[in-house]
Amino acid sequence: MSEARLEGLEALFRPKSVAVVGASADPAKLGYTLVHNLIEYGFGGEVWPVNPSAANILGRRVYVSLLETPQAADLALVTVPNRAVVGVVEQAAERGVKALVVLSSGFGEAGEAGRQAEERIREISQCCAMRVLGPNCMGVYNIDASLNGTYFWELPWAKGRISFVSQSGAYGGVFFEELKQRGIGVSKFVSIGNQLDVSHADAIAWLASDPDTAVIALFVEAVKDGPAFMHAIRQAGKPVVVFKAGRTHAGSRASASHTGSLAGEREVYEAAFKQAGAILAADTEAFFDAVVALAAYDGRPLPGSNRVGIMTISGGPCVIASDAAEEVGLEVPVLAPETQGRIRQLIPEFGASGNPVDMTPQVEAANIGGCVEAVTADPVIDGLIFINVGRDYPEFGTAFARASERLPVTAFVSSAPAVLSGLTGKVPNFATPERAVRAYRALVEYSARTRRIQNSKFKIQNSSIAPMNIEGSGVMDEYEAKRLLDRWGVPVVPETLITGPGRHEFTPIRKLATHFGFPVVLKAIQRDIVHKSEMGAVAVGIADVDQLKVAWEQMHDRFPDAAWLIQPFLPGDVEVIVGAKRDSVFGPVVVFGTGGVLTELYHDVSMRIAPLSEADALEMIEETKAAELMRGFRGLPVHDPAEVAAVIVQVGQLMLGQPSVLELDINPLLLTEKGPIAVDAMAVIR
Amino acid sequence: MSEARLEGLEALFRPKSVAVVGASADPAKLGYTLVHNLIEYGFGGEVWPVNPSAANILGRRVYVSLLETPQAADLALVTVPNRAVVGVVEQAAERGVKALVVLSSGFGEAGEAGRQAEERIREISQCCAMRVLGPNCMGVYNIDASLNGTYFWELPWAKGRISFVSQSGAYGGVFFEELKQRGIGVSKFVSIGNQLDVSHADAIAWLASDPDTAVIALFVEAVKDGPAFMHAIRQAGKPVVVFKAGRTHAGSRASASHTGSLAGEREVYEAAFKQAGAILAADTEAFFDAVVALAAYDGRPLPGSNRVGIMTISGGPCVIASDAAEEVGLEVPVLAPETQGRIRQLIPEFGASGNPVDMTPQVEAANIGGCVEAVTADPVIDGLIFINVGRDYPEFGTAFARASERLPVTAFVSSAPAVLSGLTGKVPNFATPERAVRAYRALVEYSARTRRIQNSKFKIQNSSIAPMNIEGSGVMDEYEAKRLLDRWGVPVVPETLITGPGRHEFTPIRKLATHFGFPVVLKAIQRDIVHKSEMGAVAVGIADVDQLKVAWEQMHDRFPDAAWLIQPFLPGDVEVIVGAKRDSVFGPVVVFGTGGVLTELYHDVSMRIAPLSEADALEMIEETKAAELMRGFRGLPVHDPAEVAAVIVQVGQLMLGQPSVLELDINPLLLTEKGPIAVDAMAVIR
Repeated sequence: MSEARLEGLEALFRPKSVAVVGASADPAKLGYTLVHNLIEYGFGGEVWPVNPSAANILGRRVYVSLLETPQAADLALVTVPNRAVVGVVEQAAERGVKALVVLSSGFGEAGEAGRQAEERIREISQCCAMRVLGPNCMGVYNIDASLNGTYFWELPWAKGRISFVSQSGAYGGVFFEELKQRGIGVSKFVSIGNQLDVSHADAIAWLASDPDTAVIALFVEAVKDGPAFMHAIRQAGKPVVVFKAGRTHAGSRASASHTGSLAGEREVYEAAFKQAGAILAADTEAFFDAVVALAAYDGRPLPGSNRVGIMTISGGPCVIASDAAEEVGLEVPVLAPETQGRIRQLIPEFGASGNPVDMTPQVEAANIGGCVEAVTADPVIDGLIFINVGRDYPEFGTAFARASERLPVTAFVSSAPAVLSGLTGKVPNFATPERAVRAYRALVEYSARTRRIQNSKFKIQNSSIAPMNIEGSGVMDEYEAKRLLDRWGVPVVPETLITGPGRHEFTPIRKLATHFGFPVVLKAIQRDIVHKSEMGAVAVGIADVDQLKVAWEQMHDRFPDAAWLIQPFLPGDVEVIVGAKRDSVFGPVVVFGTGGVLTELYHDVSMRIAPLSEADALEMIEETKAAELMRGFRGLPVHDPAEVAAVIVQVGQLMLGQPSVLELDINPLLLTEKGPIAVDAMAVIR
Repeated sequence: MSEARLEGLEALFRPKSVAVVGASADPAKLGYTLVHNLIEYGFGGEVWPVNPSAANILGRRVYVSLLETPQAADLALVTVPNRAVVGVVEQAAERGVKALVVLSSGFGEAGEAGRQAEERIREISQCCAMRVLGPNCMGVYNIDASLNGTYFWELPWAKGRISFVSQSGAYGGVFFEELKQRGIGVSKFVSIGNQLDVSHADAIAWLASDPDTAVIALFVEAVKDGPAFMHAIRQAGKPVVVFKAGRTHAGSRASASHTGSLAGEREVYEAAFKQAGAILAADTEAFFDAVVALAAYDGRPLPGSNRVGIMTISGGPCVIASDAAEEVGLEVPVLAPETQGRIRQLIPEFGASGNPVDMTPQVEAANIGGCVEAVTADPVIDGLIFINVGRDYPEFGTAFARASERLPVTAFVSSAPAVLSGLTGKVPNFATPERAVRAYRALVEYSARTRRIQNSKFKIQNSSIAPMNIEGSGVMDEYEAKRLLDRWGVPVVPETLITGPGRHEFTPIRKLATHFGFPVVLKAIQRDIVHKSEMGAVAVGIADVDQLKVAWEQMHDRFPDAAWLIQPFLPGDVEVIVGAKRDSVFGPVVVFGTGGVLTELYHDVSMRIAPLSEADALEMIEETKAAELMRGFRGLPVHDPAEVAAVIVQVGQLMLGQPSVLELDINPLLLTEKGPIAVDAMAVIR
């Protein structure tokens, strides 16, 4: 972001003067609420209500227009009817206002006229680097500047280190209610609205540089500029937790490629979030819990691994925590014998010292500290989850609060107020055992992401391959598609295409088959044959000349104009799919999956946005069952994932280097003794 | 359950007199807590503290032993050291006490001596039909009888219609805390402990007959008698919601069959719960939410289908609710044009009338009732989910409370106290949009289960097949296993086994292959070859005599003593697996799965406890991807699920009729044009 544009955001969050355009003296009007909120929340700068007719609002002098205010306002909150907004924006630009918040609705979300108005506002504001938040938003809140520039009249008063960027006003309300109930403070809130100018990426970039923000929470409905969004998250240097609403599963069913139907909107978004290093929340509670846990451990050590100790006095809830730990991929390793020896000295004999550590309700209060210290000191674990129902010894609070200075701790404590009060401000507490575990998982995930960014394998290589000149549009046939793949360094099956008049004779086919050696594969190639096996345009495993003749004659009757592709029949162990499509938000998406013809049924796929590093590609493989298959599942041969990763990376490079390729499928990519080989492929050309 | 045994439970829940054995005058002791709790919670019957030394506890006369109490106590709470328990049980039996609660620990959970003590207690109590709850439990609570026979000192005082059977004392505490926070009452609580006598099944059966219990909630760690447990749930006639802790995923890896490793403890439990008609909760919150929702709709109409209307004034949270609805399998159908016409008259033009219905925050309060009525009257939906953040019109509360008399409604209402108060007692409210949706889903599930029980397809047919006489033990080879399957009516591939001296010559093999017609399959059969394809003991798709000769010679070198199995190579479209194992808790478990060699990798399996009805078997298919495959996925031929269901049912019958079969695999069951055929099989014999 340029300096000027960053400065505009500074005016948005930390204005010295605020004009309210559309201010009203009628307490039932939102134009009143805005002025009232600014005053009520103690904004220290100038507040200038603007209204052509009113004289005085809440004891403040009212100005006729933005042009009349004593100085150019740093920030103007605009809540006039939508027809009047463009005029206000023009005045603001003329007057030199640095930032605008357009709270009014009825723009892009309402139809074509609204979209045109947005376009006009964008033109005006870009001329003078005036930043615009909204339209169709709830405003901006900055507790550190005592700025309540929103419609909300019940915002949290407590200062905290969580900042929230929401595309839904109502969801902002849910968030604030939740924090209030937990007694947790907030730093900034931005209701992003239609993102005419200030986008998610802008807000993330500014909050990344804000020293009062430790965690950035995002509620996303739709991202405007995918690459900018991902870049902002990558560069944030602090946790970004995302909850995405509007998760359309279905890909485009009309899509010609498998990839097109596998990579639906939701999957692409999730892949992009993950790749950029955001923590992706599965639901509302997981979202809030992750934010709260990460804020609690701001500036304190995060877990170096997924190995955690579970300590309890409550059997049942602890079993549930262990179940949940297994489910979210945490490891609960057995503690070292020396640790267990120390613990056994301190707990009743019917307790458990392995991990989970069950101190039992009968544990003596004086022994709690030593027990927690023993576990904390064991290098086999990197953090603790504490479960306690109803045993209210303050010693628990003290011991785990102290432990949290050395390693992260999350808790589920119920019916034990003294313990809870000892934990407050140190160890975050959650409403169920499962939530304490999932919140801990968010800490592990963020910590792993941080290490990942430092991993050199995530560096992206530049490609030196000269693109192929592609002519025509529509579906590119298998043969052509494989020539394209070959150019981009993807290993393809050796094969020969028989076209021209010779395609109506058997002799050249027989000769080629003999040249390759039986068994062979025969395919009919024709532009309109997309799913060959479904249309009977493929014969595999042809064992001799007689079978070849029968197969060719049958196919030739069915497809008299087809060309013929002859390939050796390769023995392979595993079939995977590698493909790509272009997403309107994020650009080229590379897809990897298993299952052959059943890929769409099992949906065992993963995806990333191009360009990809080798480590990205390896992660994609690891996210699917292919990883286990390639490690030699049930006696199958072992395959090197790096070779498959190289194909995945190259498909990403191809998509970047050949912008006319809209969709691409390698299906299957066959894993053979000699490495992966593209056996079939297709592409859709713009 | 016999009359006498039911009467014992009556004494447990509704005693007229309660003795406390191990009562104490020391407030720090649990023997004091028990007496105190009985008095504090207002128990109306006799309370007789028993202690050989104390004279007076809390103003009550103390008796030296159970033999000295004025009459035989209906119920005795026992909290003496574990060594002394057997003696107390003997006295209780002698005195004619009807029911005992053994709260003391240190029995079966602590080792062999404890197990023996339990055995002795069981013997004594069975002689005189005295019921025993525990040992190692927290006691019994019945608010309807003002009976707090537990260690808990903070139980809910509010009467409700939820009863809770818990295998964890601490989890009981979590449950009560949760209900308290929600302002919801309770009816009974039983801490089931080691289930020496009173089991889950007993508690469920008694609560099923209790008019004050509308919903039975179970926290289960381990079931003692699987069939009795399932029977009790089936017969309950009211919702049973189960949360299972200790979910070990891993099957027995040492298991010889695929089935053995696919059907782990967790999977078998879940299948049994589902088959019996329990509502299975995924986590703590889903458990409490389902219980609360079902209790709220006790005696009121339940949803007749999964089609629901979502009504809101809050965009973002409503999108989240819609996402969640899709995720849990609810349908959100478009409302009828007339309904939409009515709605559009009542909401702002930028609202939405399709479904979800967005009334917008600008909706006029006077129009809310009409709008809700319009949606309620549309037969396309069978219930409502209501989402409202911050628009506090009491009209919302009134309208949805009224709607809930005609169809079920769940809500997520936040920052709107007047709305909430209007809903109270009528429409249950949940903490997030997702939870309101999942709670609604529990209503749909219970309603479907009720209809399912009335479905005649769920009737189980008796089998008239005479069992096969099986000799020997260990792994039964493919050929023998298929003879067994054939006996039980499972279609098997036509095949011939070549044994004896002829197995060392090629001629008989060649003749057979020619008889079947190429292509054929050749398999080496030998007891120690379990996973044939992994060991290279199978050649499929042999095209001619030359290939057959090469294949046989190679295999003969490798397995010189093997017999040879020749089969025609059947063309099939889909491979599924049908298998069975014996579970120590539930008995014979039948497993169905897809994926061929990859079944264990994809874990696309379902299971049920034998005997199975046809409908059970059809449900199993429907729970896997096989259902979609059989409907003709991507141009594959269509297969009739009833034919596969028949095989599944017969495998269950086989397991019941052949008790020496421990495990059985049909892998694959090939779906061909002519129906399903068992191509390979194995069995493990006791």
